[in-house]
Amino acid sequence: MSEPTVVTVGAGMFADAVAGQAVDVERVDWRPPMPGTEADLAAVAVDPRRPGANRRAVEAVLGVTAHLVDVAPASEVLGLEPGQFLHAGPPIGWDRASGPLRGALMGGAALEGLVDDPEDAVALFESGSSVSLEPCHHRSAVGPMAGVVTPSMWMWVLEDRASGRRTYCSLNEGLGKVLRYGAYGPEVLTRLRWMGDVLGPLLQAATRSVVAESGPVDVTGILTQMLQMGDEAHNRNRAGTLMLLRDLAPAMVGSGADAGFDGKDVAESMRFIGGNDHFFLNLAMPACKLALDAGRDIPGSTMVVAMARNGTDFGIQVSGTGDEWFTGPAQVADGLFLGDYGPDDANADIGDSAITETAGIGGFAMATAPAIVRLVGGSVPDALATTRRMHEITLAENPRWSVPVLEFQGTPTGIDVTRVCRTGILPQINTGMAGRVAGVGQVGAGLVTPPAEIFPQALAALARAARQTSAGRSL
Amino acid sequence: MSEPTVVTVGAGMFADAVAGQAVDVERVDWRPPMPGTEADLAAVAVDPRRPGANRRAVEAVLGVTAHLVDVAPASEVLGLEPGQFLHAGPPIGWDRASGPLRGALMGGAALEGLVDDPEDAVALFESGSSVSLEPCHHRSAVGPMAGVVTPSMWMWVLEDRASGRRTYCSLNEGLGKVLRYGAYGPEVLTRLRWMGDVLGPLLQAATRSVVAESGPVDVTGILTQMLQMGDEAHNRNRAGTLMLLRDLAPAMVGSGADAGFDGKDVAESMRFIGGNDHFFLNLAMPACKLALDAGRDIPGSTMVVAMARNGTDFGIQVSGTGDEWFTGPAQVADGLFLGDYGPDDANADIGDSAITETAGIGGFAMATAPAIVRLVGGSVPDALATTRRMHEITLAENPRWSVPVLEFQGTPTGIDVTRVCRTGILPQINTGMAGRVAGVGQVGAGLVTPPAEIFPQALAALARAARQTSAGRSL
Repeated sequence: MSEPTVVTVGAGMFADAVAGQAVDVERVDWRPPMPGTEADLAAVAVDPRRPGANRRAVEAVLGVTAHLVDVAPASEVLGLEPGQFLHAGPPIGWDRASGPLRGALMGGAALEGLVDDPEDAVALFESGSSVSLEPCHHRSAVGPMAGVVTPSMWMWVLEDRASGRRTYCSLNEGLGKVLRYGAYGPEVLTRLRWMGDVLGPLLQAATRSVVAESGPVDVTGILTQMLQMGDEAHNRNRAGTLMLLRDLAPAMVGSGADAGFDGKDVAESMRFIGGNDHFFLNLAMPACKLALDAGRDIPGSTMVVAMARNGTDFGIQVSGTGDEWFTGPAQVADGLFLGDYGPDDANADIGDSAITETAGIGGFAMATAPAIVRLVGGSVPDALATTRRMHEITLAENPRWSVPVLEFQGTPTGIDVTRVCRTGILPQINTGMAGRVAGVGQVGAGLVTPPAEIFPQALAALARAARQTSAGRSL
Repeated sequence: MSEPTVVTVGAGMFADAVAGQAVDVERVDWRPPMPGTEADLAAVAVDPRRPGANRRAVEAVLGVTAHLVDVAPASEVLGLEPGQFLHAGPPIGWDRASGPLRGALMGGAALEGLVDDPEDAVALFESGSSVSLEPCHHRSAVGPMAGVVTPSMWMWVLEDRASGRRTYCSLNEGLGKVLRYGAYGPEVLTRLRWMGDVLGPLLQAATRSVVAESGPVDVTGILTQMLQMGDEAHNRNRAGTLMLLRDLAPAMVGSGADAGFDGKDVAESMRFIGGNDHFFLNLAMPACKLALDAGRDIPGSTMVVAMARNGTDFGIQVSGTGDEWFTGPAQVADGLFLGDYGPDDANADIGDSAITETAGIGGFAMATAPAIVRLVGGSVPDALATTRRMHEITLAENPRWSVPVLEFQGTPTGIDVTRVCRTGILPQINTGMAGRVAGVGQVGAGLVTPPAEIFPQALAALARAARQTSAGRSL
């Protein structure tokens, strides 16, 4: 005879009392589904494709190893032409763009020499005649915060060696007054020009030398180590940055000289990387995108393959619904502010960096990075609880990304639209906060979720597809 | 009227029941004191000097910041002369030395050119006529595992800038077949000669350049960061090593060339450091000694200022009893073994590295490094419980060394001989394990405690001093 098991919903004291009598108690945090989703949940639940499709989607994502194979200008590897600008999040025009995105576009226009003074770029973008905006995601790229990419910017090139697929991300500029937070002052442009003239070419030489001598750098493997070193790889990338520096520094010494850079350039580049704990974020992000892209376009799959914000809209894409974006208003994060800044100074959520949470790290792995609460707010128990809660809305645990303090449990991976709608639990993102006004830069960091309504939207599209397929079968 | 508080000893169910009624419960893990210590505990308890002395000792320890100020040969900074050998732990002669200590001494003799073949050094040490052994601790130094230091070895030089006091440690060789684990084959000596010819001088040039340009490297500060990055700074020094590399790499590029080293030497040295996750241990250890030495020689203080093992004896020194060593037989660690090695292959506990636990990190900070259980054994809950348990035998929490997952509680610092004797809780050390046979090298890593009897020994000496002082006062 098996032991009795008691399932209790809500009645905590009853559960305690039963547990005190040595009976196994399954505590279920049951909540009603999101309003209006019952019929769509039912339609998707009976879609016979769903279990297999989600299994294939998750296996595809978990099977990808991201390798750093090159560093090269966006003009070369993304085919970006003068006047073409990439940005974070779902599609948006200048008219609806927020302050930080506008600021980054203005700085980008000056960097490319389209205008001398960034302020003059306002007219350029308002006219829209010689410039165009496009999401990073539409060119296999991701960009943190404003995510603006211009043709002359140098990009990390990551590759899934099994399939040859590649993803891309710009080089990280550091914190404070930086383009991705919407700042565009002279110091921002000077730094970007140095990155274009020295850092980018030097990293290209070093990366190519490492690839030739010992093979490409295993970025997914660095992420494995980071998660054992207090990084969650969204707002803490300290250990990742140090491991990247470890892997590239010896080659920077040798190949830097070959590429015509002197010891001063090499030492300055090492200081720049080592002095910016977020440097590795721009490798973590395309590594996550590379994995998630493997799970795209699987009919019937309810797995989220991208979460991204442009500072105005928060958008998600789902495996079973192709390239469609489901969007709603981006929220303002709740968190901690730099200096005298406060909530009124913060722009709404912005950036492609929520690709980390989509892949199961970042906010989803906060349990492994409790020190992050000093940056983004909240308490250590909150951080542990967040990771546990994200397991309720995800399809799998990632065995390569484990959380030591949770006894090496894999990170919660593969957000399931149906689970989000059924539980009302929203994905937890931790994020930097940009100032609302173009030119300000970073004002803080905090915690944020997507707008709830985009999940029922996505569910409705999945349900429509399920009903159509079902109707097709019964013809 | 204040709320009732209930103190329960042992009766867990009663405590639960009372807590269920919303009464504050103080759960006390009471155990009887170590046998035979009652009278000495009573004598020390009434020593009026004790509270102030322990407060002064702890404050002195917590007040020290260790800075890396130089790298130089032991002959220069320790005055070591040909034939003089330092070793880990309390004093010992060749006759009682264990296999790994003998192996390291044999290799050291060959390194110094006293013999051509390490095997020939056995006769040299047996005769004892032209060689002498002395603990590292007696020369302000510490050495991991066998801890053998010879005149030509290059040493890290750490300084307490406030007092000018300095401590020293050799450069870490890596893992496996290395001198400190008792190996002395040709590959060991080749590596040590490269370290003497290239790595040491290059690190000297880089360190001196950093000191001149931006001031000495704050080793205590790196320890603060490490503890937020999954290192406990005894058997995990991965983040510490990477931060050290970050801090020295740019200067290695510039000053390396000035010191006559080419890019190949610089790149090879960076690879050596980056490829050895334990490299920083040899900075963590002298940083801990520098702090603890500040708490020495305070009459009436019951704080342990050193724990050290020579592979045969485990010894402690206590603030209130000067340079006296209290020793007992070193235990064999319980842990995980490399390859086909097993418990029978392991030597007893060896090394000065327990200075980390003495200062409140290493085994005392295992809660912050749960991934270490994969190296030393045990479970993640054990690791968390160990740190909590060490708070029961320590005098203070170190506010600079905090453990995020324990809600930023400071590490348990300042082992109190009276608390150890009163509770029977022994300090928890995590450690590498050397092979018993000279020449073998590392066989595993695990968990170990000091032999219990050395604490009652130390307590008896403290009690004698307390009684003498009391007798002096009543004259």
